[in-house]
Amino acid sequence: MASEFELIRRFFDRPVQGGARTLLGVGDDAALLRVDPGMALVVSTDMLLVDRHFSRDAPPRALGHKALAVNLSDLAAMGATPRWATLSIALPAADEAWLTEFAEGLFALARRFEVDLVGGDTTRGPLAISVTVLGEVPEAYALLRGGARPGDDIWVSGMVGAAGAALAASQNRARLEPQTASIARGRLEMPEPRVALGERLRGLASAAIDVSDGFAADLGHVLERSEVGAVVHYESLPRLRTGDAELDARCALAGGDDYELVFTAGQEARGALEALACELALPLTRIGAIQARPVRLVLLDAGGLEMAAPAGYDHFADAS
Amino acid sequence: MASEFELIRRFFDRPVQGGARTLLGVGDDAALLRVDPGMALVVSTDMLLVDRHFSRDAPPRALGHKALAVNLSDLAAMGATPRWATLSIALPAADEAWLTEFAEGLFALARRFEVDLVGGDTTRGPLAISVTVLGEVPEAYALLRGGARPGDDIWVSGMVGAAGAALAASQNRARLEPQTASIARGRLEMPEPRVALGERLRGLASAAIDVSDGFAADLGHVLERSEVGAVVHYESLPRLRTGDAELDARCALAGGDDYELVFTAGQEARGALEALACELALPLTRIGAIQARPVRLVLLDAGGLEMAAPAGYDHFADAS
Repeated sequence: MASEFELIRRFFDRPVQGGARTLLGVGDDAALLRVDPGMALVVSTDMLLVDRHFSRDAPPRALGHKALAVNLSDLAAMGATPRWATLSIALPAADEAWLTEFAEGLFALARRFEVDLVGGDTTRGPLAISVTVLGEVPEAYALLRGGARPGDDIWVSGMVGAAGAALAASQNRARLEPQTASIARGRLEMPEPRVALGERLRGLASAAIDVSDGFAADLGHVLERSEVGAVVHYESLPRLRTGDAELDARCALAGGDDYELVFTAGQEARGALEALACELALPLTRIGAIQARPVRLVLLDAGGLEMAAPAGYDHFADAS
Repeated sequence: MASEFELIRRFFDRPVQGGARTLLGVGDDAALLRVDPGMALVVSTDMLLVDRHFSRDAPPRALGHKALAVNLSDLAAMGATPRWATLSIALPAADEAWLTEFAEGLFALARRFEVDLVGGDTTRGPLAISVTVLGEVPEAYALLRGGARPGDDIWVSGMVGAAGAALAASQNRARLEPQTASIARGRLEMPEPRVALGERLRGLASAAIDVSDGFAADLGHVLERSEVGAVVHYESLPRLRTGDAELDARCALAGGDDYELVFTAGQEARGALEALACELALPLTRIGAIQARPVRLVLLDAGGLEMAAPAGYDHFADAS
């Protein structure tokens, strides 16, 4: 069986792409990196566990993709350009076929965004994956949760609810048509971090967050930090349609794992955002407005009546 | 039971110490940090798993300390000043007493080195702890593994072998006198990262590494990267003495987990290093010399005869 050092070298030591930015990658006690002058460093970390965030038989290529994607999504929600990542991984065995697939999924995404893997740790244990990503953003242009102001529009990219529907289907809590199931599974297994959108929202958006816990919970974080309220028209929320309206609402509002961006912007940005949607070939939909009071999410149905917003996914509370 | 968000806030959201360096800590999609102009960013990551790196009943305060300490040790081996850390932790349950102790161990060490915890992820699962640390070093002064040159002295800080002896004792592979056992256990559970030493070695040392896999294996990494050999006099290696010379040798050479620094320096640095040892109240011992050939570690016993160097700890190979 290969030694830990050989494993790390073989699967995770790739030529750096960052050029002069990455002074030293994998192979010393630590990586040595150069942050551009005038840029703030942006850091996010996420852990994925077997039986919790993915099933034991999840395709390793999708896992490699997702482990990096969920972190890149956090950087996108800050308006940051991703630069580097580190990976800690616990594996039940040094399974070369699994590692090859996992590394291919991870590096395919890393290459697309010119992200260098600059550090890692490999150990034996129940499958657990922890990724930390580092990026850069001009200090004054970082997109924070606390910047939403009364009168701002609320926007969402792409659509929400697909990942939640795929999870429900995989747990036999929902039945989907084959084509819908395929779209939904793709969104759950291979989410697309909205990196280009995040970068282009610098100077346009007043606040941003990515949808990881669920649309209602994540918009709720923006409202809480910004100390404002929101009115959202449920009918305008772009969402997966399965034919079961109740399932659709649950997945769209509380499903999580969508990795779309929810952001607020002044009304004067509407034209620029519509043009940006065309340029990026990514739907950007205006779904409501920020208001001063009440300091909570008011969700209106097609008839203008208030709907109850379901709670977001919680890693501890849900199992208690 | 507390929600994930409350947990994170309560235990890991502390006031930042970094002042103007830490623009934004825990609580948004990512942290926002300011790296000093002219400084390279230094990044290292390590994962600790229950039943692998620590026992199920390990004191949580020691765990919190060690999870950060092993990462700070990597920064010390680069000559870097630690600034920030992120923590991903999987827990079987939201146990408040455990979390309180763990957080106290971690933050006590973080405070000593003015390290801000700026991001985290908390989830349910088999206990696993992944820490990433970020630090700074003037680019030209980073201590790399590849800088050792023939004629350089080889030095080690403190002593090696204590952590290995404690581990052996805890697994009933060794019997230690009570006082020795207590010293050894302290070194295993609460290792002291040699941060001040690393910073002061800038411009003095030609290469450095921290002892995590075992003295022989870690010095071996320096030799490999530097493409040089080494002669080390075993008798001069500062090590734990248990009364069992064979156990002492095994622990000192292959025990790992000591988190001392092994470094090389030109002979002209001897006076400065002896003065530094006094100033830091930390023994620095000259144990051998770098030579051009053969490109491996030659270990000599008291009689000048070559000893066999045991292999280092390997997270996969040892269980295969």
